[in-house]
Amino acid sequence: MPKIIVEIMPKKDLLDPQGKAVANSLHREGKKEITAVRIGKRIELHFDREITDQDLEMAKGQAANFLSNDVIEDVVAVTKED
Amino acid sequence: MPKIIVEIMPKKDLLDPQGKAVANSLHREGKKEITAVRIGKRIELHFDREITDQDLEMAKGQAANFLSNDVIEDVVAVTKED
Repeated sequence: MPKIIVEIMPKKDLLDPQGKAVANSLHREGKKEITAVRIGKRIELHFDREITDQDLEMAKGQAANFLSNDVIEDVVAVTKED
Repeated sequence: MPKIIVEIMPKKDLLDPQGKAVANSLHREGKKEITAVRIGKRIELHFDREITDQDLEMAKGQAANFLSNDVIEDVVAVTKED
């Protein structure tokens, strides 16, 4: 099924308490090589037909304006998957 | 900065109310070509050194056993990014 994947992460300067908690837990297990963990969103938009360049442009617009909050999040990728 | 990206999605058979709400909202805006929306997680594990194959194996183990809940979620990808 064709889909567009939108990847959204919390901004670099922002605290990410959930990621911090996961990083602490990995450290307690001895995984000291992991310096930080950040947790964001992976959103799939499913299509019942082939995805066009216009669809991808539309998805980029939705990712920036509706799916993410640009005060606290960055859209890191909008990609097509068949 | 080297990092490992873990992508986790809710299982196909599972309801995803947050994704459903986003899909409904897109439909109200006229984006009828989007048949469904699913919302999962994108987790970045940051390293302060180069990532080895062992690190990737470790991350796959953590993704399956700790970062995801295999009753309700699937790990869809574990990839390296430099």
